[in-house]
Amino acid sequence: MEFSSKLLEQAVDQMSQLPGIGRRTALRLVLHLLRQPEHQTEQLSQSLTNLRSHIIFCEQCHNISDTPVCEICSNPNRSSELICVVEDIRDVMAIEATGQFKGKYHVLGGKISPMDGVGPGELKIQSLVERVRQGEVKELILALSATMEGDTTNFYIYRQLEGTEVDISTIARGIPVGDELEYADEVTLGRSLQDRIPFESSLKRN
Amino acid sequence: MEFSSKLLEQAVDQMSQLPGIGRRTALRLVLHLLRQPEHQTEQLSQSLTNLRSHIIFCEQCHNISDTPVCEICSNPNRSSELICVVEDIRDVMAIEATGQFKGKYHVLGGKISPMDGVGPGELKIQSLVERVRQGEVKELILALSATMEGDTTNFYIYRQLEGTEVDISTIARGIPVGDELEYADEVTLGRSLQDRIPFESSLKRN
Ligand SMILES: [Zn+2]
Ligand SMILES: [Zn+2]
Repeated sequence: MEFSSKLLEQAVDQMSQLPGIGRRTALRLVLHLLRQPEHQTEQLSQSLTNLRSHIIFCEQCHNISDTPVCEICSNPNRSSELICVVEDIRDVMAIEATGQFKGKYHVLGGKISPMDGVGPGELKIQSLVERVRQGEVKELILALSATMEGDTTNFYIYRQLEGTEVDISTIARGIPVGDELEYADEVTLGRSLQDRIPFESSLKRN
Repeated sequence: MEFSSKLLEQAVDQMSQLPGIGRRTALRLVLHLLRQPEHQTEQLSQSLTNLRSHIIFCEQCHNISDTPVCEICSNPNRSSELICVVEDIRDVMAIEATGQFKGKYHVLGGKISPMDGVGPGELKIQSLVERVRQGEVKELILALSATMEGDTTNFYIYRQLEGTEVDISTIARGIPVGDELEYADEVTLGRSLQDRIPFESSLKRN
């Protein structure tokens, strides 16, 4: 790509470092900003630098927060006995959106993936073990993705907590509510058969 | 989407104002920046505000430029007699990439589109007419997109230039080089039949 302006080229170079943004898309985004009022670009830049320089991670659950302890961890109406372990803050947002969970979280920051050079030491596993050892936690729900890396991480956490009293569960995998069986992938369908639940307990939910 | 941080929410709000970037994508991009060193966010923000506040449009062709007259317009090896009229600076970049064009450009900034509220007054048509009236231009190549809006804009420009001596041509439409006829869309194929060229003149090109 040949640019008629160094300033334009620099902006496109920077924008195209974002994941999934190729140089053509970056150019389209930058040209869009040029057509908008100048304050829009200023607000975008300002909000990104503000976030990057003032961001705090909750010292208990490692969720992104504006305060040292996040709103969820400091909410007295939420149980400290039940902790949902997730990879990422997007998982916290997804679970919060269900309105079904009244415990607290622990954000690992990823999952163990030797291929990507992510070992247990890169994740917030030690601080999870410490939280459990402090004795207040009764149950951990492991809500990592159902992949080999997720399973590896689950198992690693399970081993680290051997000898503690905490109950460990994983979220159910199965056919999405409302989906037709015929469109489900085989692995999910197989898992939903293995993890079948007593019909009477399914009745109680409805 | 419920955010655990106002700073995060503001950054996602701003990012998702870019065209084609939904809130989920915006969140993914912002979280990526948080995982990168702080200077990456600073460089991105800086390059966008720099571009937005220091951008210049060439006073002759309206291409984005770092100088009042762009490199193409000020290049003595390029002909001022031949001007290629395009919608957008991306078209300039595409044509420059062919290495086939030795004239200069005129960037309209869009095409006439009453549906989108774009009339001739929003485009750099008047300045094109003035460039032609100054007498140096011998030929205009209209290289707008082959859409109704492109055709409307072409015709408007043609009418504005009635009474001048300038030759007006449009770029050829046809089957892309190397493509099989059977995969061409009907409109393109029809146009390539209408706009057929003498075989002997096609021989000279090879
Ligand atoms: Zn927290
Ligand atoms: Zn120029």
